Amino acid sequence: MDYYPESVIDLINEIAKLPGIGYKSAIKITYNLIEMNESEVTKLARAMVEMKKKVHYCKQCHHLTEEDLCSICSNKKRDQSIICVVDTPRDLIAIEKTREYHGLYHVLHGRISPLDGVRPQDLTIASLEKRLETGQVQELILANSPTLEGESTAVYLSKTMHGKVAKITRIAHGVPIGGDLEFADEITLLKAMEGRHDY
Amino acid sequence: MDYYPESVIDLINEIAKLPGIGYKSAIKITYNLIEMNESEVTKLARAMVEMKKKVHYCKQCHHLTEEDLCSICSNKKRDQSIICVVDTPRDLIAIEKTREYHGLYHVLHGRISPLDGVRPQDLTIASLEKRLETGQVQELILANSPTLEGESTAVYLSKTMHGKVAKITRIAHGVPIGGDLEFADEITLLKAMEGRHDY
Repeated sequence: MDYYPESVIDLINEIAKLPGIGYKSAIKITYNLIEMNESEVTKLARAMVEMKKKVHYCKQCHHLTEEDLCSICSNKKRDQSIICVVDTPRDLIAIEKTREYHGLYHVLHGRISPLDGVRPQDLTIASLEKRLETGQVQELILANSPTLEGESTAVYLSKTMHGKVAKITRIAHGVPIGGDLEFADEITLLKAMEGRHDY
Repeated sequence: MDYYPESVIDLINEIAKLPGIGYKSAIKITYNLIEMNESEVTKLARAMVEMKKKVHYCKQCHHLTEEDLCSICSNKKRDQSIICVVDTPRDLIAIEKTREYHGLYHVLHGRISPLDGVRPQDLTIASLEKRLETGQVQELILANSPTLEGESTAVYLSKTMHGKVAKITRIAHGVPIGGDLEFADEITLLKAMEGRHDY
């Protein structure tokens, strides 16, 4: 590693801290940055810091937003009587892309997973419970990913929310078992939404 | 794309500009950044800008450095009578890792490739020619990658530098043909250096 100038080593180490990026990839990205001109690199660095400063989670549904409420929660045209529960913002966006769902969302930011140390209280479940208290919500769609952890989370939610909302449904297993919800194609997701059943 | 807040879209677009990083990867990296805390992201952004400000090419051999001369060129213990020509700084580091070469280097920053529009004058060949003028250099080792473009570059150099240096050698084809020099293991590279022949 002492083959590189210090500032290059520092950068490789910082990039390698990103989850899912190995050492080889960090070196590759660093070389790309070396070859870019300074204004481009500054622009990228600024975009990172700007995003980090501006973006946080919606105080109602926990989706990404720059405001107090996300663009979906603040849209009065959305059906306020349905909440679709998803594991991550990426899953929310996968469903939005079908353009067929017009209710609200609730982003859990994870799945219950004892092996990874993720407990129900680590997710936004308490906040979901509070949203049901107004009595405005008629249906809760559990759109957790069809993985072991996603199913466990759905089961846990269906038990916890029982009696607090008129109807609890689970998206149909049109989504391929074992996969990540966000990689499902739009038609499959649409079929899964249509085929949802009582849970 | 309008599913994301503006600053998130901006960042995804900036990251996707990096060569070799697709749109899906850019989104993945952005999510990682969203989940990191602000001080970590600021640290990464700062490391990028710092590196870009400090690092440039050595004015003698064109390797990466924060000074006028790189750590190899400014090391008086290195054998000043041999120059090893490489395509990229990564190739230089691959050879350094064998710990058996003690001469100097010359980094071309590319390979002659008419198809990609890379001409001899786009590389640091004129600067190499100037380094031979002092008469101090006795041998030029052509360690260009064993690819079509690398071979063409070696052939071009052996013709251009003919008569300007006592000995021109090419590393042996111990390095697997068609591969990138930087991915060769250290022993293979060592063998290739040892088995170099007149060119």
